[in-house]
Amino acid sequence: MAAQALDALLQQARPEIRAMHPYEPGKPVETLERELGIREAIKLASNENPRGPGASVREALARAASDLSRYPDGSAHTFREKLAAQQGLHPDQILLGNGSNDVLELIARVFLAPGTKGVIDQHAFVVYPLAITGAGGTVCAVPSKDYGHDLPAMAAAVDDATRLLFIANPNNPTGTVASLAEIESLLQAVPSQVLVVVDEAYCEYQHPSASGTALSLLPRYPNLVVTRTFSKIYGLAALRLGYAVAAPEIVSLLNRLRQPFNVNSLAMAGGLAAERAIPFIPSAGNFLTIEVGAAKAYYDALLQEGVIVRPVAGYGLTQHLRVSVGLPEEMARFLASFDRVRAQLAA
Amino acid sequence: MAAQALDALLQQARPEIRAMHPYEPGKPVETLERELGIREAIKLASNENPRGPGASVREALARAASDLSRYPDGSAHTFREKLAAQQGLHPDQILLGNGSNDVLELIARVFLAPGTKGVIDQHAFVVYPLAITGAGGTVCAVPSKDYGHDLPAMAAAVDDATRLLFIANPNNPTGTVASLAEIESLLQAVPSQVLVVVDEAYCEYQHPSASGTALSLLPRYPNLVVTRTFSKIYGLAALRLGYAVAAPEIVSLLNRLRQPFNVNSLAMAGGLAAERAIPFIPSAGNFLTIEVGAAKAYYDALLQEGVIVRPVAGYGLTQHLRVSVGLPEEMARFLASFDRVRAQLAA
Repeated sequence: MAAQALDALLQQARPEIRAMHPYEPGKPVETLERELGIREAIKLASNENPRGPGASVREALARAASDLSRYPDGSAHTFREKLAAQQGLHPDQILLGNGSNDVLELIARVFLAPGTKGVIDQHAFVVYPLAITGAGGTVCAVPSKDYGHDLPAMAAAVDDATRLLFIANPNNPTGTVASLAEIESLLQAVPSQVLVVVDEAYCEYQHPSASGTALSLLPRYPNLVVTRTFSKIYGLAALRLGYAVAAPEIVSLLNRLRQPFNVNSLAMAGGLAAERAIPFIPSAGNFLTIEVGAAKAYYDALLQEGVIVRPVAGYGLTQHLRVSVGLPEEMARFLASFDRVRAQLAA
Repeated sequence: MAAQALDALLQQARPEIRAMHPYEPGKPVETLERELGIREAIKLASNENPRGPGASVREALARAASDLSRYPDGSAHTFREKLAAQQGLHPDQILLGNGSNDVLELIARVFLAPGTKGVIDQHAFVVYPLAITGAGGTVCAVPSKDYGHDLPAMAAAVDDATRLLFIANPNNPTGTVASLAEIESLLQAVPSQVLVVVDEAYCEYQHPSASGTALSLLPRYPNLVVTRTFSKIYGLAALRLGYAVAAPEIVSLLNRLRQPFNVNSLAMAGGLAAERAIPFIPSAGNFLTIEVGAAKAYYDALLQEGVIVRPVAGYGLTQHLRVSVGLPEEMARFLASFDRVRAQLAA
């Protein structure tokens, strides 16, 4: 009897959900060790940053952990202000998510419904078809070209039922990348009432000579959404933090469906501390010239930390310091000292 | 031109989302202070636990913060094992969420679609109508009775289009509570293919003489789902952790739509540490008799901490200790010592 009642209940679930298979994440180290009874397993399965975040993040988390009982700031006021200032955006263009997965899913759920379509690449990130299907939409997968997105073919696949395209740039799992010019050609080819979502989870790993981020295209293409994550180069996958940048009107729609406290307090605190953001001149050498403002004060304070860098005021660069690329452990020490010095000078 | 294109794009969004208003959370303290230019504001708006979690949680978070770069265990293996053992459940009956909000929304999204209904109380928690509407369903709000849920009227409101009922017990914001017998009468009156979701976010605040949790009804009613949160009595609202308990088949459906890493690593670590769970005999006096197992060892170790409690082996209770209810600061010290002793004795 109970089994029959349960069957009848399960039949009431949405058919597209019943047909879905859950995402299969990279197996956690602990799970493998438990299953096989082994130790010292390593995980190279989820494209995390193996070095993790710096000491400043752990310090920020320790401070934030003194008030765990209060709900997070659901409006993410401080975080969006800082991120916007750094990236030359308006805070109303930014929507935070519980990882960029959350943001991708919100986009799908706002714009898709049964009878509509989302266009993706044949080898695209598996969360896209899950988000499209979960929202009731239909997946239109376009064959890849040389393991990369065939952007003209994706534009050609758009029809009246298409509501959005998901573009991973660089792509996961193939690692291919489209240039900014190719992304712009896509935006010109796609009708302006169709959303183009460019997922830049891996964008910081591109070579400096690559064309970079689609953020620069936002002012000209209001149907563009760019997503980012703190799970990769920022080393904060455990905390769950990602964001979308889009027209404020689109962000406002996404906010209506967003869970009010979708991002936890420690993710926001950690993300703020991880956004180290030292402006620098793109360098083809084994050194970086960074912009710090009060270069002399930074130089002196770094000396007190036992870290020698090079003032470049003699070159007419009074706001800059030049830093040689040392051993990984030397760079870690430089960064820890830099964070302390910046905190001192800001106080 | 751009404005027209954007308008055309926004018109493509699902009409029910365009009509929604976002949830208005309790204003954070920092926001009020910033807006009014005042200090020392207090927040009594979101029913958090003002004392927050114990030291054991902060210690667990500090340990977990040493590995922020790895994704969380999406299967929540350890957490579900421990929770299941404590509550006499099977781990497959448990689904973790990014707060219980996440779980409530997943339930709505799996079982609701345009043309279907969710039944709620007129004064019920505002997340229920948002979850129902966001999933495309229609809200059927049943008038309250003495500010509480009118459960017979809610059962009578169920029709062929109804897929679920949300019951807050105790209710937020009215604080009313239904007895277990009343919940069971509802379950008997509702067709077994309709889901009855009992949200027990505040269940731990009930008087010990109250009838307690609907978890005990699960074996007899496969259409029952019970939800819980760590945001209230456990003092972890900042971390975002909640869960549902239901038949494994229902949990399996919810898992298909769940974001693979919906719960962050620190929430799981903090939740494990917060689940202090000292079994005790419900007491009508100003003392509690707790079950610790090795009572003599606990007693001796607590003495070393400067904390005197009462062995009750002379009463034939060799596994128990009796603890008087002292001042709040004395109880905090007892709990801190108890946690240390338990960790010592477990090592």
